[in-house]
Amino acid sequence: MGQLRIPGPTPCPPEVLQAMAGQMINHRGPEFGEMLQDITARLKQLFQTKNDLYLLTCSGTGGLEAAIVNTLSPGDRVLSVTVGVFGERFTGMAEEFGAEVIPLRFEYGQTADPDEIRRALQKEPEIKAVMVAHNETSTGVTNDLAAISAVVKEFDKLLLVDAISSMGSIDLPVDKWHCDVTVTASQKGWMVPPGLAMVSVSQEAWQAHARARMPRFNWDFARAQKYLEIGQTPWTPAVSIVFGLSVALDMMLKEGLSNIFARHARVGDAAREGVKSLGMSLFPDEKYASNTVTAVSVRDGMDVKEMLKILREEYQIVLAGGQQSLQGKIFRIGHLGLITEEDIKEIISALKEVLPRVSA
Amino acid sequence: MGQLRIPGPTPCPPEVLQAMAGQMINHRGPEFGEMLQDITARLKQLFQTKNDLYLLTCSGTGGLEAAIVNTLSPGDRVLSVTVGVFGERFTGMAEEFGAEVIPLRFEYGQTADPDEIRRALQKEPEIKAVMVAHNETSTGVTNDLAAISAVVKEFDKLLLVDAISSMGSIDLPVDKWHCDVTVTASQKGWMVPPGLAMVSVSQEAWQAHARARMPRFNWDFARAQKYLEIGQTPWTPAVSIVFGLSVALDMMLKEGLSNIFARHARVGDAAREGVKSLGMSLFPDEKYASNTVTAVSVRDGMDVKEMLKILREEYQIVLAGGQQSLQGKIFRIGHLGLITEEDIKEIISALKEVLPRVSA
Repeated sequence: MGQLRIPGPTPCPPEVLQAMAGQMINHRGPEFGEMLQDITARLKQLFQTKNDLYLLTCSGTGGLEAAIVNTLSPGDRVLSVTVGVFGERFTGMAEEFGAEVIPLRFEYGQTADPDEIRRALQKEPEIKAVMVAHNETSTGVTNDLAAISAVVKEFDKLLLVDAISSMGSIDLPVDKWHCDVTVTASQKGWMVPPGLAMVSVSQEAWQAHARARMPRFNWDFARAQKYLEIGQTPWTPAVSIVFGLSVALDMMLKEGLSNIFARHARVGDAAREGVKSLGMSLFPDEKYASNTVTAVSVRDGMDVKEMLKILREEYQIVLAGGQQSLQGKIFRIGHLGLITEEDIKEIISALKEVLPRVSA
Repeated sequence: MGQLRIPGPTPCPPEVLQAMAGQMINHRGPEFGEMLQDITARLKQLFQTKNDLYLLTCSGTGGLEAAIVNTLSPGDRVLSVTVGVFGERFTGMAEEFGAEVIPLRFEYGQTADPDEIRRALQKEPEIKAVMVAHNETSTGVTNDLAAISAVVKEFDKLLLVDAISSMGSIDLPVDKWHCDVTVTASQKGWMVPPGLAMVSVSQEAWQAHARARMPRFNWDFARAQKYLEIGQTPWTPAVSIVFGLSVALDMMLKEGLSNIFARHARVGDAAREGVKSLGMSLFPDEKYASNTVTAVSVRDGMDVKEMLKILREEYQIVLAGGQQSLQGKIFRIGHLGLITEEDIKEIISALKEVLPRVSA
């Protein structure tokens, strides 16, 4: 049995795939309306929030663009905390829409330091919002969002969170941690094919929305709210993925949030211990290592491209390489969503066989 | 057997639904890359174009937003030709992004007059682009895009086309008609669930792109091009819908473009003749009536909401009402994609039974 172990898309349970094959229904009819209201309510449980919540038909990147254009104006100062490639993407997006972005960069493999965030906010009182990834997929690092949020809220700033590869897998209590806009996407811990982003919106985010002047039409939360009230989305949604999500949410609520988080913690541990047992090193400091994706440093003389190819072709195990400046320097094991410790054991066994073949 | 006959989402063939249930693969791996290149090539055949072509994970509305932000700058004058609700949506979007939109509105139910477009272009030489819907879904009207394009190109303006509910169902030779950006969406004539927009981009559109200053990140065609060259999309695509589209394109190429267009013409005729045989009137002038959606005027004393409910609950036939100012004034029969004259006969028979029950 093969395994797709990139940090998304993740494998889907058979029940979800079966739902994906459902015939189309009227997206402005009563059946869809009930499903949408019900999914929204269940997602709020899993986001641990009473905030508003919307489904957008797009990738996670679209959801992040929505977070920016719904809350900011051109010229607004924003602090963008980045620890990897996805933090940089979030930064670039805000710049493209005319925000005056103050980047606060931490070395790849490190976590964001709340004290440095405090100093940055003290230095620039004009900052309106702080952007941060909860879990940085490119480096396998989880930021301490509770501590970051505490600092951000000391200064009463808006907090925009990329929770794409954490929400539903790692504890992220949206209300407790005062996240104003929180973005995730269907193809991650949700065990559903890509094509839907899920976004929560706080009262403070709505106040920012009322003042925000970046252009928005497709992403406009006000339109999403207006249509949700009648059980619709403003534009035609990805109906099949909504079907799939509905089934996946049933499974998640049955397992229970704390069990899901505990399973991801166990699986993350198993991945880290397994990697180390092969004599390899984790890329990030182990204290910050993510429970949804493990980044492994490539050893000198190791042909990582060949390793990924052998794993794919001979073992049907698909892992991910490094992105951008990390290409050739790390490889990554995605372990979020539908995964158990047994799956990790299988990957470690395969790596054990392949590593000698690709090492100088 | 029930029928979903709204103008999208349209019913999907069983083969497409089966493909939708496919397990996830790596969207940055070789298998997906080959599929994406192959789909792009086949879509170009069906668009009758040698232009660049991209898949975007979004609704048709997202595709239209992409057309605007990739080719225009804030302050650019654009002529927006509108004959219905979707023309107004396109207009509103360009305004939101700061274009100086000159609306050229025709009465709902009428078609756009190329001579009036010529006069508008003569009057305002600063116009950069003309926006128009080929097929206006809200009124059941097809514009004479060949004639409109001839006028637009007399003045050497950019032509942005909403072809969401026409492409792949009604003849629209993109290159012959010099369409610079042409947008369609998977849930229409393509017989695939919603979630993908397909967009063609001409050389002139690329020249406009180089100068265009509206903010763009998620929608950026340059990023789409850069990634397509390595068989990828910049952001995680709706993999399942790509699977479905691949199967649907096989079916469409097997049927052949001219056969598809002829079938839609026959089906459109059958719908119009059927409606008239019941003593009802078409909403648009029949000369301009669309071959993908038929809009029918609601008679005095007729309870159209009740009619749609009876059709849905007792006949499992789902038709669409009117939108916005047309609510309660028309209803619409979608007949694009997977449809035959037999399906239309069934709808007309059902209407024949239901009409007396909902007429005063």
